[in-house]
Amino acid sequence: PPGKKVLIVYAHQEPKSLNGALKRIAVEELSKQGCSVTVSDLYAMQFEPRATRNDIVGSLHNPEEFNYGAEMWEAYKRGSLSSDVIEEQKKVQEADLLIFQFPLYWFSMPAIMKGWMDRVLVQGFAHEFPNCYDSGLLKNKLALFSFTTGGTKEMYAKGSISGDIRYLLWPMQHGIMHFCGVQVLAPHICFAPEYVSEEERKEMLIAWAERLKTLWKENPINCSPEWYFK
Amino acid sequence: PPGKKVLIVYAHQEPKSLNGALKRIAVEELSKQGCSVTVSDLYAMQFEPRATRNDIVGSLHNPEEFNYGAEMWEAYKRGSLSSDVIEEQKKVQEADLLIFQFPLYWFSMPAIMKGWMDRVLVQGFAHEFPNCYDSGLLKNKLALFSFTTGGTKEMYAKGSISGDIRYLLWPMQHGIMHFCGVQVLAPHICFAPEYVSEEERKEMLIAWAERLKTLWKENPINCSPEWYFK
Repeated sequence: PPGKKVLIVYAHQEPKSLNGALKRIAVEELSKQGCSVTVSDLYAMQFEPRATRNDIVGSLHNPEEFNYGAEMWEAYKRGSLSSDVIEEQKKVQEADLLIFQFPLYWFSMPAIMKGWMDRVLVQGFAHEFPNCYDSGLLKNKLALFSFTTGGTKEMYAKGSISGDIRYLLWPMQHGIMHFCGVQVLAPHICFAPEYVSEEERKEMLIAWAERLKTLWKENPINCSPEWYFK
Repeated sequence: PPGKKVLIVYAHQEPKSLNGALKRIAVEELSKQGCSVTVSDLYAMQFEPRATRNDIVGSLHNPEEFNYGAEMWEAYKRGSLSSDVIEEQKKVQEADLLIFQFPLYWFSMPAIMKGWMDRVLVQGFAHEFPNCYDSGLLKNKLALFSFTTGGTKEMYAKGSISGDIRYLLWPMQHGIMHFCGVQVLAPHICFAPEYVSEEERKEMLIAWAERLKTLWKENPINCSPEWYFK
């Protein structure tokens, strides 16, 4: 609806890919609804995935023994995180909805997107004990994981060799988003686009556009072990 | 035992950390046994985690639409992967055992290590349909995930808020290692070292050294959904 803010964190190297098309459709459809949409195009930004001392500007809290998490927490409080991290945090802070658009790499997100999680969701900003899970600091936001797979839907069925696709969503949806207090909408999965016809790929794009039309009426999933493993 | 080759893929920024100590202990103990030990110290190497066109030397198979997985497969067959990827593949090829040593970041490995998986375990080298899972191309190798956590053991118990620690091992152990045919030894987990006494941290190091003494007699886990979710 008008006024809602959306951040799309996008990780694909090729604009002509299905992921690229899914991203563009989300920008178009949500903009049409009156939402304000921002895209972090991680490869185009050459986003840094490595968690290093360079993420802290100026001197360290404990230069004798570098502890990334502790230093980032301190740097957040002093306002001395590196500018690229601060930029992403501003986008997250403003957003009502985070959409992560990526091809599944090894049962997870590509490293460049994992690096976004590692570097941006700093203690103090996204969580701060006891403010985690339902009371995480990013509560009142929504997240949606939208991704393509190499394997077919059949391979990711319960009892199949790759296991229920929900098994691999646990670290991303529960371990990251729910930990930060973010409520999670059902994932949007395009299975094996490389092995289907051009016609079926078009249907995948249409299905995503259709879902986006009523996205704001959806209820979050119940992000508990039952949803993933029952 | 003498003659066995071990590759330790290590991802911590600080040599004085517990992860650094665990890595050194593995090098010492396994060398003492007569093993040949190689370490890929990812942060020290400034290992590139991003999966990009730079990983392919020379021209692309399909420059019109960049498909990372397809291009890497082709480049592997032609011998035109980038030199840093080839170096890591050589180390993997020679190894009998892969040890991954890292601090758990967001229910998974740090992005720099995820990038190692994304870029090194190329189709054609590590798997090639139908050679996946039990017939993956890296069969006859072993892997062990050794990591530290922020959360306590109680938080990662079944029924606790963070869920059974095994839930988050599924993508790493099954989705990556088992997919490539690698057999997985039980993980080695040091829970919440930042919140225990210096004495207890020393005990953690001793326990790891002790385990390594009889590591080669261990049987792999049964890497099926039952192990993770039963």
